[in-house]
Amino acid sequence: MNYRMIFYTVGKVLRMESIILVLPAIVSLIYGEYFPAASLIAGAAVALVVGYALLLCLKPKNTTFYAKEGLITVTLAWIFISLIGALPFVISGEIPSYIDAVFETVSGFTTTGASILRDVTVMSKGLLFWRSFTHWVGGMGILVFVIALSQKSPDRSMNILRAEMPGPIVDKLVPKTRDTAKILYLIYVVFTLVLIIFLLCGGMPLFDSVVHAFGTAGTGGFGIKADSIASYSPYLQWVIAIFMLLFGINFNLYYLILIRKLRLALSSGELRTYLIIVLVSVGVVCYSIYPMYQNFGEVLRLSVFQVSTVITTTGYATADFASWPTLARAVLVLLMFFGACAGSTAGGLKISRVVILFKKIGNELRRAVHPRSVSVVKFEGKKVEEDTLNGVGSYLAVYAVSLLCMFLLLSIETRFDFETNFTAVVACFNNIGPGMGLVGPMGSYADYSVFSKIVLSFGMLLGRLEIYPLLIACNPRTWIRR
Amino acid sequence: MNYRMIFYTVGKVLRMESIILVLPAIVSLIYGEYFPAASLIAGAAVALVVGYALLLCLKPKNTTFYAKEGLITVTLAWIFISLIGALPFVISGEIPSYIDAVFETVSGFTTTGASILRDVTVMSKGLLFWRSFTHWVGGMGILVFVIALSQKSPDRSMNILRAEMPGPIVDKLVPKTRDTAKILYLIYVVFTLVLIIFLLCGGMPLFDSVVHAFGTAGTGGFGIKADSIASYSPYLQWVIAIFMLLFGINFNLYYLILIRKLRLALSSGELRTYLIIVLVSVGVVCYSIYPMYQNFGEVLRLSVFQVSTVITTTGYATADFASWPTLARAVLVLLMFFGACAGSTAGGLKISRVVILFKKIGNELRRAVHPRSVSVVKFEGKKVEEDTLNGVGSYLAVYAVSLLCMFLLLSIETRFDFETNFTAVVACFNNIGPGMGLVGPMGSYADYSVFSKIVLSFGMLLGRLEIYPLLIACNPRTWIRR
Repeated sequence: MNYRMIFYTVGKVLRMESIILVLPAIVSLIYGEYFPAASLIAGAAVALVVGYALLLCLKPKNTTFYAKEGLITVTLAWIFISLIGALPFVISGEIPSYIDAVFETVSGFTTTGASILRDVTVMSKGLLFWRSFTHWVGGMGILVFVIALSQKSPDRSMNILRAEMPGPIVDKLVPKTRDTAKILYLIYVVFTLVLIIFLLCGGMPLFDSVVHAFGTAGTGGFGIKADSIASYSPYLQWVIAIFMLLFGINFNLYYLILIRKLRLALSSGELRTYLIIVLVSVGVVCYSIYPMYQNFGEVLRLSVFQVSTVITTTGYATADFASWPTLARAVLVLLMFFGACAGSTAGGLKISRVVILFKKIGNELRRAVHPRSVSVVKFEGKKVEEDTLNGVGSYLAVYAVSLLCMFLLLSIETRFDFETNFTAVVACFNNIGPGMGLVGPMGSYADYSVFSKIVLSFGMLLGRLEIYPLLIACNPRTWIRR
Repeated sequence: MNYRMIFYTVGKVLRMESIILVLPAIVSLIYGEYFPAASLIAGAAVALVVGYALLLCLKPKNTTFYAKEGLITVTLAWIFISLIGALPFVISGEIPSYIDAVFETVSGFTTTGASILRDVTVMSKGLLFWRSFTHWVGGMGILVFVIALSQKSPDRSMNILRAEMPGPIVDKLVPKTRDTAKILYLIYVVFTLVLIIFLLCGGMPLFDSVVHAFGTAGTGGFGIKADSIASYSPYLQWVIAIFMLLFGINFNLYYLILIRKLRLALSSGELRTYLIIVLVSVGVVCYSIYPMYQNFGEVLRLSVFQVSTVITTTGYATADFASWPTLARAVLVLLMFFGACAGSTAGGLKISRVVILFKKIGNELRRAVHPRSVSVVKFEGKKVEEDTLNGVGSYLAVYAVSLLCMFLLLSIETRFDFETNFTAVVACFNNIGPGMGLVGPMGSYADYSVFSKIVLSFGMLLGRLEIYPLLIACNPRTWIRR
């Protein structure tokens, strides 16, 4: 294994982190918050020192990257960036416990949006900005970001992209990985800017607009108010709801639209399924909550917003959906598993994986009836390779086992009810943020024990990196030199 | 499709049902319950008439059975036998609602043990006997029973056995399917008799012994007391706990022991895993509930009993485990999914499937690290075929999707909390019986709506027949003549 190349790349990531930590520090200074600014700069300094130490001490002899190296690098990069990114919260004293700060930072980078803060309004602007900025950076992928920025990308850096980008099938848009990464980030930046403008037009203050744009683009969900988005105007709620849905669509489709292949983009089976699921869910939720609100306009807005927030795994809220009727809650819990499209910033299983899964089931049923028949599963007009098909089945198995194990570990905590524990795991693992019960949109993860917070942090990373990288990195045999 | 052969076989099953309904009628008469006896005879008469109508009107031209016919026959047989088996409950007036009676009968035949009875003690002996007898008949398979009894079995009757016997791999023990069925039933009968003797030796009355032996052998769980097994002596509780575990072992292993291949039987990987899971679970549950009881002997007995009842999907109880600490409850919920060994009378996913699943995951992880490696998954000393491996993955997918759909349908019911609804689905689908919350061992399913009872009945059948047969029978395309 190319250890040097792995740590060298992690060094690059930390160097990048030191730069991006300067931005919230500047925001802090603008608002005259000198102590938070200093703590952010201190964090940047640590990242810079550790980063350069890795870069200088472990200069690689060759830059070759295989799948294994890709998986390990991604895992380590995400862990290091979270451990260091948590420092400013601790140094500033705004989150005194380091474990809490790590939970919050992991939740940020993985775009989960689960928070241990009981009252988010007492935090300084600079650290609120940093918290939301982690969503934005993590959304598109930390290493994708580094690849996009680096002068020359390492050989076979596709192995990094593949390890970090969610979804069952990862394709390069253009021959060079670095150019693919650049295109993706360009679309991401433009969409974020457009969203900020829309929010400003609706009368949202600049700071709020930027922070919420970060949370929406990364499908993260960290807000800056106690009631998330509920106190903003209906216009602003609609804007955020629609943009959440947009950020849940595969970015490759935007690229296709960009190069004027609109028809090809619109023919996507995943997109169609995604929209159908959203429509059906909105319908059921409307039906379920209508008796509570009695006003159709409001019911529709609340339904669209909550369905969008859950299916895209963002986690903003305009209603305390944990107190909704059981049917609406069940629909939302179901959506938590789906997630949005592959190649978007969303978490969860991803629609394409769910579609392939259903086709696989259909195939299996046909095979049970006609044992000797050979049938081909098609998706997006192409035959799905047997390997991908089986890979999706295995992924579901790993996914289910991981979920159950985490649920078991969380159950050592006796203070919480079944619904709280179960949805806490589901919400963290699928990078959504709020669950039901005590960890609902108006609750927080503050009351969990240190052990549970570590389990949930691990769960968030596991979900964001789609399990394999982290499991492989945790296996001691991976580390033995052959 | 060979419609005639399908309905002809269903007719045979109903003829068999009419015979087995006579047994509880005799029990009724012995206890001087004339009205229940009459209602059981009335049920037998209906089964006889419908059965003979099918046998005479639909005499098949050829007796060939393909996989498709096997799946459909099994599905129809189970539905018909339940619909008719429910009649005595309604006619006698002991369960006035037909839907409730069907729920109870499906729960019996599928060896679930979930009950809609608020107070089981008011029922007549005859109908209590019938209720438990359905467990015993359903445990080993209704069609396996018919095959074992019939003079000549149809060609390719292995397709029936395969559709009805649980587990990922079904093997014939001896060349003839009928002989295999006979051997399995012989072992089953002998074990049941031994259990009855053990119970009688412990001072349990004859009626109680027989009824509980049926429930234990079929891993069903219908009891005849409000507190299930809790009021019996520790000796009797230990006997039932151990026999539950024994009935959770693959019957092929008993056959191997019978033909003096003890070493081969003991080398079974599934058996080893099963025992390890039981031991570990007992340990964790002991640890979790110790503070509640403080007496190690009692804690051990309660833990072993409850772990056995859940992993074998029986559903007897000696403690209200729904009120146990969260950790113990989480372990039990987890065990609900596992189920015991394939080829036993237990429900759930089956240990062998879980083991293959884990090996598949390990394989997938290795493949992620070394994309071009070829590795072989071994189980029970043999290579697992690629088809079986993928079949297990698909099964898990269908399983998870079915579970979530049923949970969604049950959530239309707003009266119950998340834990109750979720575990109700899990307990019915895995053929366990009691869940947590309001459907715990001391609760009942009585308060669910008619719609939910239908959903749960469907779920029990789905679980018992391992999903595919029922799904295929529900697909209209299956029925179109080609």
